[in-house]
Amino acid sequence: MYLTQGLHRAVQQRPDAVATVFGDRVTTFAQQFQRVSRLAGGLRGLGVRRGGRVAFLGLNSDRYCEYYLAVPWADATVNPVNIRWTPMEVAASLDDSQTRVVIVDDTFSPAVAQIREHYPNLDTVIYAGERTTPPGMVCYEDLVSNGPLVDDARRGGQAMAGLFYTGGTTGVPKAVILSHANLITSALGIVASQAFSDFDGAILHAAPLFHLATLSELVISTLIGRTQVILPSFNPIAVLQAVEEHRIMGLRLVPIMLQLLLDHPRIDDFDLSSVSSVGYGGSSIAESLLLRAIERLPDAKFVQAFGQTELSPVTALLGPEGHSPDGRSSGLLRSAGRAGPHAEMRVINQQGAPLPPGQVGEIVVRGAHVMRGYWRRPAETAAALRGGWMHTGDAGYLDANGYLFVVDRIRDIIVSGGENVYCAEVENAIASHPKVAACAVIGVSDALWGERVHAVIEPVAGAELTIEDLRLHTEGVLAAFKRPRSIELVEALPLSASGKVLKAKLRADAADRGVSAQ
Amino acid sequence: MYLTQGLHRAVQQRPDAVATVFGDRVTTFAQQFQRVSRLAGGLRGLGVRRGGRVAFLGLNSDRYCEYYLAVPWADATVNPVNIRWTPMEVAASLDDSQTRVVIVDDTFSPAVAQIREHYPNLDTVIYAGERTTPPGMVCYEDLVSNGPLVDDARRGGQAMAGLFYTGGTTGVPKAVILSHANLITSALGIVASQAFSDFDGAILHAAPLFHLATLSELVISTLIGRTQVILPSFNPIAVLQAVEEHRIMGLRLVPIMLQLLLDHPRIDDFDLSSVSSVGYGGSSIAESLLLRAIERLPDAKFVQAFGQTELSPVTALLGPEGHSPDGRSSGLLRSAGRAGPHAEMRVINQQGAPLPPGQVGEIVVRGAHVMRGYWRRPAETAAALRGGWMHTGDAGYLDANGYLFVVDRIRDIIVSGGENVYCAEVENAIASHPKVAACAVIGVSDALWGERVHAVIEPVAGAELTIEDLRLHTEGVLAAFKRPRSIELVEALPLSASGKVLKAKLRADAADRGVSAQ
Repeated sequence: MYLTQGLHRAVQQRPDAVATVFGDRVTTFAQQFQRVSRLAGGLRGLGVRRGGRVAFLGLNSDRYCEYYLAVPWADATVNPVNIRWTPMEVAASLDDSQTRVVIVDDTFSPAVAQIREHYPNLDTVIYAGERTTPPGMVCYEDLVSNGPLVDDARRGGQAMAGLFYTGGTTGVPKAVILSHANLITSALGIVASQAFSDFDGAILHAAPLFHLATLSELVISTLIGRTQVILPSFNPIAVLQAVEEHRIMGLRLVPIMLQLLLDHPRIDDFDLSSVSSVGYGGSSIAESLLLRAIERLPDAKFVQAFGQTELSPVTALLGPEGHSPDGRSSGLLRSAGRAGPHAEMRVINQQGAPLPPGQVGEIVVRGAHVMRGYWRRPAETAAALRGGWMHTGDAGYLDANGYLFVVDRIRDIIVSGGENVYCAEVENAIASHPKVAACAVIGVSDALWGERVHAVIEPVAGAELTIEDLRLHTEGVLAAFKRPRSIELVEALPLSASGKVLKAKLRADAADRGVSAQ
Repeated sequence: MYLTQGLHRAVQQRPDAVATVFGDRVTTFAQQFQRVSRLAGGLRGLGVRRGGRVAFLGLNSDRYCEYYLAVPWADATVNPVNIRWTPMEVAASLDDSQTRVVIVDDTFSPAVAQIREHYPNLDTVIYAGERTTPPGMVCYEDLVSNGPLVDDARRGGQAMAGLFYTGGTTGVPKAVILSHANLITSALGIVASQAFSDFDGAILHAAPLFHLATLSELVISTLIGRTQVILPSFNPIAVLQAVEEHRIMGLRLVPIMLQLLLDHPRIDDFDLSSVSSVGYGGSSIAESLLLRAIERLPDAKFVQAFGQTELSPVTALLGPEGHSPDGRSSGLLRSAGRAGPHAEMRVINQQGAPLPPGQVGEIVVRGAHVMRGYWRRPAETAAALRGGWMHTGDAGYLDANGYLFVVDRIRDIIVSGGENVYCAEVENAIASHPKVAACAVIGVSDALWGERVHAVIEPVAGAELTIEDLRLHTEGVLAAFKRPRSIELVEALPLSASGKVLKAKLRADAADRGVSAQ
């Protein structure tokens, strides 16, 4: 199968249905088909050849969606760029991926000069903004208007669909190679899981389109011909307005976005009754936040998706059953769900043997959605895929019914006084304190304990908190050795583009400030 | 992906749920997992090696389901045998496919001697019946009890899943090579189409399991962990009893079975309220029959599936929307539906160019569900798959919304007096006559017209019919040149194992009896 397949189908079946809505621009499938095939022709005219990389550096837009289809139509490979990177980081990734053509929008066209400084091999910059095309750039709309209508190369199957730099929380970003089969397997697995009930209506893209979780919904939408309403970036009031105006049926959010929506003072001014499914994932979620969301959207079905870029990206889903009163009372709400119909998932020990239910080990996955590998990193690829299983680096256990409980990233385990402390467990316990808006737990080196449990806390506006407050709050919930031995109050936690707390930054900051010497 | 993947998932998530029900035998997923892995070990012990073919010649049973999973588990290839064949035909297919191991049941174990006469290379016959194992055969249950537990070979992806001899209505049967990816793509496309609503309950297998339409439901059931209730063969009263007893949610029937059910005098004695989806296909259906079925099962959603063995097998689906009062009044009920999310479908002219809506041409299909090819027939494979599209041999047209209307098999078009007559159209018109139980229209050679429209009719019990009756009945419905110029009344139409009328036999019989000289 191939990403553009659904576009052919939509044009045959519902040519006048709406493919994308972006601000005032409404594009039907028939129009999208024309634009995509001409843009592909334009890219070919610019020298893009089979397998060549084309990057997109920009906020979300309808043009971003066209890009994802036009590049494979032209038999090339996408390289969606992380919008939080500095120009130097962008240049490094373009160099690493040998990308010669980049599409930029108004937000990022000013950065091109700096990017070029660090990466002089950049041949062509295509301007997909709303103003006059800057000198030295090619106008996106000119390509769409004047590009020759080319036949779809139908790039698909095992061919490389894209390079996806992982927005990891530590280390140097590396590119994951995903094939068309990878992306479509995850998408079809999500649909076949029967967890979501929003395939007949419009979906809202508020999370960044360079991120695989959002791309995944673009893939599903294209496959089944669903309308995509696109916001340039996440903004609570814009989300609320879009839901009401476009009768949005499907929302996909990372926990921090859900929190910002729920905390917005105007949330009750909008009609959110059209929302039938809310998908979330990307980082662990506080149970208290989820319960507030369920209360505010009682008719919506909540679904948690678990995965990572290397898994295209979804492996497990916690459907509405886990969010029901029964699921909540039995503790399923804390689960990341069960393997979808497309995936096989195990928890293994350090020798690679499968562990029985209840025992914590590394979560490993196999299936046609597992990445082809890391770009030009054969040793890391072989290590990650050893024995035919993708080693996720996440620690967790399965229950007797195959529900996965993620205890933490393996590297996020604190070993304090010889005991394993799973940061996520501590974070969940702290987050339920009424004065805590958000928190992150890290290990800092400690003369006595080896590592010490340290909590970085974003309090609700104006609140004060002490270690003693937290000790009282977590007593009976957390064993003593799991409780934070030091805390730090901050205005805002540092977040990655996909809403994950940047723990590496917290660790570095703590070390810089001598927290570890406390 | 691979066929056995869902079994691993089911055992992890719902080990005690019911996998299969066959008569009094109820098998959970945990038990099925044990039986399948031991049977695979037994097959390996009998010398079955990577890619080797293992045939099954028998009526439906729970063991047939185990066979479909154990063979890929052992890294081998299935070869489900057409149960309507003569021993000589079976031998010819085993020889063609170089199959050395065959599993037989009680119905077919007596035929083994004759099969061996024509195919002495048959090494091993496994007896999967209910009695004492005949001499010279290996006991199936011994393999399941004593076979070593072997690891799943996880045969999947592009590897050959099976050889499927097409139960075509003409010519010498040939084997279609389908990969695991082929079968699973069709299955996931069916699920993603959202047409069916019976994925949470039990499905009934009443049509033969050697047929790909039934195997397709086995693949879906395994993927999503659905209970399969299995009847040895179709029998109206057994179907009605099973629906009531097991609260069957999904039925899949060919039109003749639907008719036999509806005509059964005891149909109103059974509670059929559990049925939420009825899938049908495999041959064209009379509108009058379908309307009777909708009337009898008003709460069930009807879905028509269009495909062929070469398409693993489904390409298009006509969902409940086509069966609603709106769909009926707009003529959608006569459509074979729209391409599923996994398929691309076109209608082309003889030069291979796509035709606009409304124009009749050959239906061609592409997608990951298209067969790898015909077994050892490179020329036929190249012809069928020329230009990257599977040429179905079916004639039809698309409407402006992508709905496919099949007018006929290309070889079932009668050219009478220079005009094309589509047999299916004539058959539909005749079938609505109250005295007609079933009918088939063929062309017979005619001195005046070149070919003449000839109808073979199975009247309702005791009824008489004349050409004049049919002329009056079809006046205003069919143009004069489409009306039958000769008819023939028979007790029963000859049917293939999958319920298709054997038109080649009708044509041969007509020629033998000199109908063409009339």
